[in-house]
Parts: sequence; structure tokens; C-alpha cells
Amino acid sequence: MEKGYRIAVVGATGAVGTKMIEMLEDTTLPIESVKLLASKRSAGKTREFKGAPLTIEELVPDSFNGIDIALFSAGGSISKVFAPEAVKRGAVVVDNTSHFRMDPNVPLVVPEVNPDALKRHKGIIANPNCSTIQMMVALEPIRQTAGLKRIIVSTYQAVSGAGAKAIEELKQEAQALLDGKSKEELDPQILPAGSDKLHYPIAFNALPQIDVFAEDDYTYEEWKMINETHKIMEDDAIKVAATCVRIPVVSGHSESIYIETEKEMTPQAVRDLLEKAPGVTLQDDPSQQVYPQALNSVDKKDTFVGRIRRDLDVKTGLHMWVVSDNLLKGAAWNSVQIAETLHELNLVRVPN
Amino acid sequence: MEKGYRIAVVGATGAVGTKMIEMLEDTTLPIESVKLLASKRSAGKTREFKGAPLTIEELVPDSFNGIDIALFSAGGSISKVFAPEAVKRGAVVVDNTSHFRMDPNVPLVVPEVNPDALKRHKGIIANPNCSTIQMMVALEPIRQTAGLKRIIVSTYQAVSGAGAKAIEELKQEAQALLDGKSKEELDPQILPAGSDKLHYPIAFNALPQIDVFAEDDYTYEEWKMINETHKIMEDDAIKVAATCVRIPVVSGHSESIYIETEKEMTPQAVRDLLEKAPGVTLQDDPSQQVYPQALNSVDKKDTFVGRIRRDLDVKTGLHMWVVSDNLLKGAAWNSVQIAETLHELNLVRVPN
Repeated sequence: MEKGYRIAVVGATGAVGTKMIEMLEDTTLPIESVKLLASKRSAGKTREFKGAPLTIEELVPDSFNGIDIALFSAGGSISKVFAPEAVKRGAVVVDNTSHFRMDPNVPLVVPEVNPDALKRHKGIIANPNCSTIQMMVALEPIRQTAGLKRIIVSTYQAVSGAGAKAIEELKQEAQALLDGKSKEELDPQILPAGSDKLHYPIAFNALPQIDVFAEDDYTYEEWKMINETHKIMEDDAIKVAATCVRIPVVSGHSESIYIETEKEMTPQAVRDLLEKAPGVTLQDDPSQQVYPQALNSVDKKDTFVGRIRRDLDVKTGLHMWVVSDNLLKGAAWNSVQIAETLHELNLVRVPN
Repeated sequence: MEKGYRIAVVGATGAVGTKMIEMLEDTTLPIESVKLLASKRSAGKTREFKGAPLTIEELVPDSFNGIDIALFSAGGSISKVFAPEAVKRGAVVVDNTSHFRMDPNVPLVVPEVNPDALKRHKGIIANPNCSTIQMMVALEPIRQTAGLKRIIVSTYQAVSGAGAKAIEELKQEAQALLDGKSKEELDPQILPAGSDKLHYPIAFNALPQIDVFAEDDYTYEEWKMINETHKIMEDDAIKVAATCVRIPVVSGHSESIYIETEKEMTPQAVRDLLEKAPGVTLQDDPSQQVYPQALNSVDKKDTFVGRIRRDLDVKTGLHMWVVSDNLLKGAAWNSVQIAETLHELNLVRVPN
């Protein structure tokens, strides 16, 4: 690779797409060109890349002619149709939607956790769900050291995970309530799930629904955390339970995580381990009120871990608080990091 | 009791005191008179009670002469000094602060759960912590039916639990951020804990600290949930772990609760049980997106329970989502309900 890769960003105008462009400005990946793709509606608009304007083009199958790496974040239905078209034209796809995640032929990758899974790629690599990624970054070092038997997680998820329109919805609702309007005067259209029947206010509220409901009265978001954990850690025996909740935060997912390990680890041993762990910033000093906060995680690539403490009854039980910018490590940064890792492992090519 | 009780409200200008006055307007308790007490600073101000203005008086020991029931919610240091003064003058005290809660001579009461503990009162009855009360209301019917071995709870707590100034702080910060100010331009003074050294923004954030840090790196709020559960359920063998988190909600605490019972119960059996349980409103129909929401709990006396589902790995494991107005069932309503129960049990007298 002399000059660098020709990269396409699909869904360039979205909340994640915008961050993908920023992450590409900052990557170690050699880049020859960047092509921005979106729906017909957005075609013709411009976005800056390293100070120069790039014109957004309409996404069509031939958009991928001459592309080496395509980063997708325009919804599952777009990925379903266009990711195979990109692969057919020789591009390696890193897909941020849920569409291919559980496909046995598609590696589901968090570079700090399972980079070797990339070696099995057949053209498409899936980026895990935002709430799963940060949990994996925090727990993998513990799993490697002490084994992992069980996870119970309750999430505190930001609205930007539901896209740019959800951010606007939160802000408009918050302003209306601050102006003295009643909750009945609000007109929610997006949350808790754009595709579901009913919509509820998120401002000054907490909604225990992310994505639609599925088997056993768990939501898809909760199933994603369960199934993706098993796939990424390559261990279906880990017991995983999740309760996924949207709260009125713009960006930065927080998670209250309880785990049971095989071997007992002291909280201090966990701190020592995570202090050196890739992609983790330890923020854990109760005596100085140091712990991760959603507001402080924004625009940071790392996963922040704190409030590490022993369970009072179960010897191998530990509690912790894990926070990360859902648009970066949860989406755009993990996708670009996958591209960087593909480059390092010399895997930016579609196998025959 | 011919005419009714002479009642005092201590801390009448606070977030909880204000709600106590509202609850007294609505109680079945026979009332002869209501006296409003507060600090010297608030003395002379008026508050309406059933349409008539009441003048707030300065709290002094002799304020309790001729009082039958005194409801305290003015901070632990006020209760420490003035609750014994009230009892000395013949008043029964219902105290909403944490000061007397773990005193073995003081019953800690949720009327739906342990009303009989009132029979042992020696003048002072403690109202439990807000986050504990709603959990007890939801779990006691299950404990009675299937036994309760374990609780793991993560809370999503509203700012009104930290008082009227915390509500103002949330609103000012939210407005500043909506106006485009940066988080560095905010000036938090109250949260996460008024008495702690550092203060952090709560608007569009989540703070994993409520009250100050204590033993084993758990906060006092977390210890309250653990210790008060043992005292109210009269069973120290129940394993309890709590992670308490403040989120940008004005009123209405939400809780993600995992429990393990002695005997297996299906989610439907739990629903059938809670449908008839005192103080509970079941809101649990995922097919219609029905589940409890903080915004909908405001000004309601009940505890709302939904998202009831089995754990996928542990046969006796269940998950649920429990919401209640922290100023009402979590404080003012539970206090007035204790007074009603004292009346019903003919216990409104200080034992010799």
C-alpha cells in the first residue's frame, strides 16, 4: 500500500457517520481518499475532511468501485442491500448496524478483545452494539485473569445512540418542560424506538425500553448485550442478564455492572489490572470523589471504569461503573479501530 | 379522639415538607390543627392548608407543647436535637431523616410491609430511605410467597431527593447547556452530596454517588438500602447489593432490580401477585409498551412495577423495573401513612 486506502463512509450525515469522519481525520491508517455516501436527500451537501470540503454523493452499488474500506452506519436495511455490493466490488466492509452481527460468517470485533477474529473475515466485519463494546473492554482483562461466570448489567444509555433526531427530541422536550409546559404538551416521535408504535418523552425521564421487545420480554438491545457478549468472548457459558434503559443524557453510556469471576480478585487487583488494560482509563478514587461520568466521557476514545468494589456476600462478586462515549468507542472509533487493525494484520482485502 | 390530632410539620418549607402538607390535606387521619415549623429564616412566611393560610413558626423545643404527632423532615441534625424534645412533650414523632433509622429502639416502617413494628415504638418512628421504601413495597409480597435470598439493585434517582435546591440546580444547568454553554461554565454547588467536597453537574449526566462514601467504597445511600432492607424485612440473611446513581430527573426514582427467591415463581405468577398487592400498581405489558416511567409517577402515591421477566440462567432469578415518586411514597406519603397506621392501631401516644 503505497499511497493509502480509498475509504467510503456510508451514512455520512448521521450522528455516527459525522464522528466516523472525525475519527478518520485522526487515524494512523494511511488514507488516499475519502468518499462520503448518503441518501439522495443529502447528496450535494458538503462536509469538511482535514480542512477541505467533500461533497456527499448518493449511495448506489457502483459507489464502491475502487473503494478499499467501506464504513457503514446508515441502518440495517441499507447494510443488508449495499454491504454485499461493496464486497462484490472488492471493498472490505466494517458495518456498524446490527444486521450481520450474529451471522456466523461475520466476525464481531472489539480490537482490544478479539482482534484475531478478523482473520476469518469474508469481506464484512460487524461492529458490536455500543453498550456491549464498552462492557467488553472493561471485562476482558478480568476474564483473562480470573475467568468470568456471570454478568448482570443495568445500563444508563444516552439518546445519541438513537441518532441525531433523538438528540434534537431530548433538547426540544427539555426546553419545553423548563419553559413550564406539561408532559402532555410534548410530542415525542422517536424514542424509545423509532420503529415502535408508541413514543414517550425522554427529558427528565427514564425509559426502560431500547429497541423493540423480543423473546421472553427482553428488548432487542438486551438480547444484543447477551448474544454479542457470548460471540465476542467466544464463550456461551457466561451467564448474562441485561436491563437497558435510556436516560436524558446526550452522549456517554453508563453501565452498572455486577460480575462473578471463577477465581477471587480483590478490588485493588482489578484496579491494578485495568490501569494497564488497553482502551481503559481507570477513574476510581472514592476518597477524592473520582469516578466515571457520562459528561466527561464525551469525545474521548477510552472506556472509563470506576466504583470497583467487592460484593458484600459473594466472594467472587464484584461491582463496577463503566462509561464510554457511545458515538466513539461505541460506534465510530471502534469501526475505524477495526480498519486500523485490519491494516496492521494485512487483512484489507476480500478473500476469494 | 373527638376532634382530631394536633399535628406539627418540621421543615415545612422543604421539598418533602411541602409534600407533607399536601398529604395531610388528603389524609383519612382526623386532624384538629396543623402547625408549620421551620428555621428562623422562614418564620413568618405562610403556606396554605385546605385553602386557609398558615403562618410558619420558628422551631423551638416548646413548639411541641400540645402536639400529638410531629412529622420531621428538616435534616438529621435537627431531628437529633428536636425529636427527643417533641417526645418529652408528649408528641409521637415520625422522622424522615436517616438519624434514628438504625436505632434498635426505633421502628423503621413501611406500612404495607411491617406495620406491626409500630407496636414497639417508644415515641419515635423512622421513615426509611426513599429508594428503600419503593423496593420494599414491590418485593415484600414476593418474599412472603416465595422467600427472598438475594437482591441486586441499580438505582436511577431523581434530584428532588436532594432537596429543593438540587431541583433548581438541575434546571439551571440544563438551561445553560441548552443555551450552548460548556460544562466547564456550570457552577454546581449541591450535587452529588451537599456535604461532600466536590460538586458535579447533573444535567445531561449520571452521577454514581448519592450521599458520601463509607465502608468498602459503598456510599451511605447504598448502605442505607442494604441495612434498612434487613431491618424492615427482619432478615439479615438476605443478600443485598446496591449501586445508587443520580440522573437528571426532577422527581420519581426508578430501580432496576434483580432478585433470587427460595421457590421458583414465573413472571406471570409475580404479576398476578403484585396486581393485588397493597400500594402497588402493576404496569407490565411489553406488547403494548406499558412499563413504569418516572415522569408518570409524579404526584402518585403508589409504587409502579413492570418489566418483570425471568433470568435466562438462574431458575429462581427475576428482573423488574420499579418506579415511585420519591417525595411521596419515598417520603411525605409514607410518613403520613405511618401516622394513619398509628391512628388505626391506637398507638398515637408516647409510652411511659
